[in-house]
Amino acid sequence: MYQLLDGKALSKTIKEEIAREVSAITAEGSRPPHLAAVLIGEDPASQAYVRSKVRSCEQVGFQSSLIRRPADISQEELMQIVRELNENPDIDGFIVQLPLPAHLDEDEVLLAIAPEKDVDGFHPMNVGLMALGMPRYLPATPYGILQMLERYEIPTEGKNCLIIGRSNIVGTPLSLLLSRKGYPGNCTVTLAHSRTQNLPELARRADILVAAIGRPRMVTADMVKEGAVVIDVGINRVEEHTAKRGYRLVGDVDFEAVAPKCSYITPVPGGVGLMTVVSLLLNTLKAFKLRCQTEVQV
Amino acid sequence: MYQLLDGKALSKTIKEEIAREVSAITAEGSRPPHLAAVLIGEDPASQAYVRSKVRSCEQVGFQSSLIRRPADISQEELMQIVRELNENPDIDGFIVQLPLPAHLDEDEVLLAIAPEKDVDGFHPMNVGLMALGMPRYLPATPYGILQMLERYEIPTEGKNCLIIGRSNIVGTPLSLLLSRKGYPGNCTVTLAHSRTQNLPELARRADILVAAIGRPRMVTADMVKEGAVVIDVGINRVEEHTAKRGYRLVGDVDFEAVAPKCSYITPVPGGVGLMTVVSLLLNTLKAFKLRCQTEVQV
Repeated sequence: MYQLLDGKALSKTIKEEIAREVSAITAEGSRPPHLAAVLIGEDPASQAYVRSKVRSCEQVGFQSSLIRRPADISQEELMQIVRELNENPDIDGFIVQLPLPAHLDEDEVLLAIAPEKDVDGFHPMNVGLMALGMPRYLPATPYGILQMLERYEIPTEGKNCLIIGRSNIVGTPLSLLLSRKGYPGNCTVTLAHSRTQNLPELARRADILVAAIGRPRMVTADMVKEGAVVIDVGINRVEEHTAKRGYRLVGDVDFEAVAPKCSYITPVPGGVGLMTVVSLLLNTLKAFKLRCQTEVQV
Repeated sequence: MYQLLDGKALSKTIKEEIAREVSAITAEGSRPPHLAAVLIGEDPASQAYVRSKVRSCEQVGFQSSLIRRPADISQEELMQIVRELNENPDIDGFIVQLPLPAHLDEDEVLLAIAPEKDVDGFHPMNVGLMALGMPRYLPATPYGILQMLERYEIPTEGKNCLIIGRSNIVGTPLSLLLSRKGYPGNCTVTLAHSRTQNLPELARRADILVAAIGRPRMVTADMVKEGAVVIDVGINRVEEHTAKRGYRLVGDVDFEAVAPKCSYITPVPGGVGLMTVVSLLLNTLKAFKLRCQTEVQV
């Protein structure tokens, strides 16, 4: 019988822990941690993500600021916003919601964010610190997965782990984190991708299988080892005429068929997705603490 | 019949190419690229490495500076040297030879090196740029291995690659580089280490096997697939009374037994080791070019 890795319950627990810490911080007379989010344009998915982040800030007692600009903002205007946020001492961390409209240079924007305020963990400096085993802010999705493994006390040492998908924000950083010393970690990680030739065979050998490719239900039951831990990062819309909105959200894993073979598995929705916002809150809390330490030192 | 990946011949070829480029640079009236090396203390191996780097600079027409200080230098004095090298416009790149004496804080020193001058590629900013697919300076040994694969036109796409050893300077960065899109790359990489439980089995499946653990002859013939490409990063001294100095240099691979099964294999010495100095020269040349571009832009 498999056990669900319940992102809903776990994210609630961790948010309550953060809220208690924020209460203690403000009880000592300090301002609460403060996250700012920059949202460009009217993309519905981006709006929903940012709303959820702002609402989560409220739930834990953080201050939050939402900076909205129209889709036709110039690169220079956006860069100016980033510079102001970098310099504003009342803001501990901020994010620029991706994707940006096509005329804007995402890399230039991300590189301009002060690494100390980069609570998305996307800046090369933070990626490098993570790769070298000196982590500061971990990217949200991999960090959320680590927390799931840790809170459910899933053994990782010496386990064979297959990660499918080599993106900069999920697969590649997660492969670094699970390979490194410590817990969760010490896995023997294989990173698979579109050019991998023997995927089903590799998947069948994995004790821990992470799917992060964005292809609905591509991990089927014949690809999963009996007793495996399966982490499903995918959130895909598939048409379903009987569903209220005409579509249904499914993961990269064929849940119904795969779950009976698993020891643990994440549902979609209600799994990894909910943990990513928690990661952002934890990074912002860390940014707040690092700022305070620096101020005391100075 | 296996083919040797000849680091000696290949490093000579690439040095000649660099030398021609330097001639063209100086013929246009510019100063040559300039590498500085900081050597602390009297460690014989470190002295030998730095000597070899300085000599290689001379061979290709670079300017080089060697800054030697006694082992009892203070952290602050060393940090001051780093700051001066960062600011010196006549120096394109510099390295601080590791390991440092135990009383010095290596991490603090490496973090203080300006990323634009970090031709060892050890700074988190450069590691992060590499991980995100925007490489600037690649760490010397992985870069040397990439060049070997490329110059010998060894196919990598879709190949199963096992890297044994997860160090910050070899195994981990090489796993990132071989996983990424492009050539050499697009491998399905598995990163193995001391906690890996089924190493011989994993090794037998590898089309490309990289040994970087520092244990003499630990990769034996039974661990290697027929036709594999074997890259041996190890340089280990083993006692041998009949040898001139009382020891002999051997790799992490049992060369005599393994070579007959390989399509390609690196010898030790004369393999990967010689490529690392070439990587340092290539990074310094790149640093020179990036500085010139910046000066032109400004």
